[in-house]
Amino acid sequence: MTLSTAFTRLFGVRHPIASAPMGGSAGGALAAAVSLGGGFGLLGAGGGERDWLARELPIVARAGRPWGVGFLSWAADVRGVEQALEYDPGAVMLSFGDPGPFAERIRAAGAAVIVQVTDLEEARQALDLGADVVVAQGTESGGHGARHGRSTLPFVPVVVDLAGPVPVLAAGGIADGRGVAAALALGAAGALIGTRFQATAEALVAPSTAEAIVQGRGQDTERSSVLDIARSSAWPSAYTSRTLGHPYLDRWRGREAELAASADAQRDYRADVARGDVPRLPVWAGEAVDLVTDLPPAAELVAALAAQAADALARAGRS
Amino acid sequence: MTLSTAFTRLFGVRHPIASAPMGGSAGGALAAAVSLGGGFGLLGAGGGERDWLARELPIVARAGRPWGVGFLSWAADVRGVEQALEYDPGAVMLSFGDPGPFAERIRAAGAAVIVQVTDLEEARQALDLGADVVVAQGTESGGHGARHGRSTLPFVPVVVDLAGPVPVLAAGGIADGRGVAAALALGAAGALIGTRFQATAEALVAPSTAEAIVQGRGQDTERSSVLDIARSSAWPSAYTSRTLGHPYLDRWRGREAELAASADAQRDYRADVARGDVPRLPVWAGEAVDLVTDLPPAAELVAALAAQAADALARAGRS
Repeated sequence: MTLSTAFTRLFGVRHPIASAPMGGSAGGALAAAVSLGGGFGLLGAGGGERDWLARELPIVARAGRPWGVGFLSWAADVRGVEQALEYDPGAVMLSFGDPGPFAERIRAAGAAVIVQVTDLEEARQALDLGADVVVAQGTESGGHGARHGRSTLPFVPVVVDLAGPVPVLAAGGIADGRGVAAALALGAAGALIGTRFQATAEALVAPSTAEAIVQGRGQDTERSSVLDIARSSAWPSAYTSRTLGHPYLDRWRGREAELAASADAQRDYRADVARGDVPRLPVWAGEAVDLVTDLPPAAELVAALAAQAADALARAGRS
Repeated sequence: MTLSTAFTRLFGVRHPIASAPMGGSAGGALAAAVSLGGGFGLLGAGGGERDWLARELPIVARAGRPWGVGFLSWAADVRGVEQALEYDPGAVMLSFGDPGPFAERIRAAGAAVIVQVTDLEEARQALDLGADVVVAQGTESGGHGARHGRSTLPFVPVVVDLAGPVPVLAAGGIADGRGVAAALALGAAGALIGTRFQATAEALVAPSTAEAIVQGRGQDTERSSVLDIARSSAWPSAYTSRTLGHPYLDRWRGREAELAASADAQRDYRADVARGDVPRLPVWAGEAVDLVTDLPPAAELVAALAAQAADALARAGRS
């Protein structure tokens, strides 16, 4: 059974599965592979670094399948978005911050506007802005999200009710086909999946990162701002990130203000990274990391997720 | 379509829906109504107060349908469990603490052992103990749960994989038929639902509590130990509870140790309760409280949840 939803029809994709635009690691090869596998691949443009976009955009664009590109609203500027629009994406996704400054420009270029939200107020704003797709992100997601977030299971149906005919994607806590099936059962038009796609052949991550995800356990993930502070990141304090365990989490948990005030501690962090004592980047991972146990090619993964989702729906309540 | 699972077959119930054994408020009338509606009603015995059990047990037992009774493992003693077993329940559910001291006695009486778990280690222990049903509780649930809990959506499939043929119920964040459908899609054999059943005609709650749940929003719920400390509750510190907003939460959030050390503050709380300035009990509510907008009879609710779940599964991926 092929799963058909308002999302698959909107973009003309085979499966109701999108890969999350994970900043830096969701490059052209991953987005292209997801799209070639029948999903909707999203490039992770972060704040829109020009050279990165110039390198990665052609890779996904030349795959010739529906694709998109995701920006951080708090970090991006209109020029980065315009650089992406030159490659004719099907959609631009805006996360974490005010999507307002970008929406009109995206629409004018003929692309769909996808807005990721973390609470009902943001969902209302996204719909008022005319978002074509709303992504409802739960706090179990890997990487950045709202400090005071909602859980995916109770959050998605409320956003669905609010959105009416506008398709909603569920994000956070989904790493296998059963999770995709659950998203559809909740009324979502598909799933946006992050961590699972970090552990694929095409993700732009260090081999040690991919291996850490394969070995990682959901109960070892933690949502915190410690690592953003330690690495002197520009992320606003309204957002924390979920990562696997890290020595700096153990050292500074509960003392975020002290860490933020300590130039010494942030210098120590850089020195530890330079010496290789701590990894160059945190390992961002969601609670569903338990379900990630291999490193498949992303196109095969999309097909497997869709088949497992269809199977889960067919079996549910019929065993 | 009738939903059939290992849970419905085990207990001979029509719908894969159990009402949570909410201490004190899930009395005989609620459990009986859930069972008469085709679900599996669970009496909320808490620590097993003798007079309460003597009053409520006959009410559910005489309904003549499959039913169960839930105890808090950290608070119960074997005599309370034996008092319940005299009424021949289909199952005894054990939550929060070591189920070991009770399991053999329950099994010897011919009842099934249901164990609620909040992490994978507890799930392994429950299965080693021979649990007949495992309830996987996510942190979005109302009332008490693990301080460092998991979210339902990513937690349930991992417990399902661990449990093999043992039926798993999903708990936490489920308040409508879409949530029940999602639980089944994740591989669970049913859903254990709390907050939704607090807002029914039969729940033993004050009218003001039922009304607060109907009006409450998920984003206003909060998991904390402040209210347990303020009311000098015996709940172990490994458990927090999710409630709607409360003046003492605003006053003491982040200062739990100070509150615990202040006999004055706890006396103030009792005085505030006596004067009616704060409610007699916290309003325990899960994140799915957004979806609770009415006060139906519980039997009708069970049928409606089951019908909506079947409909959600039939529509998922086919729109």
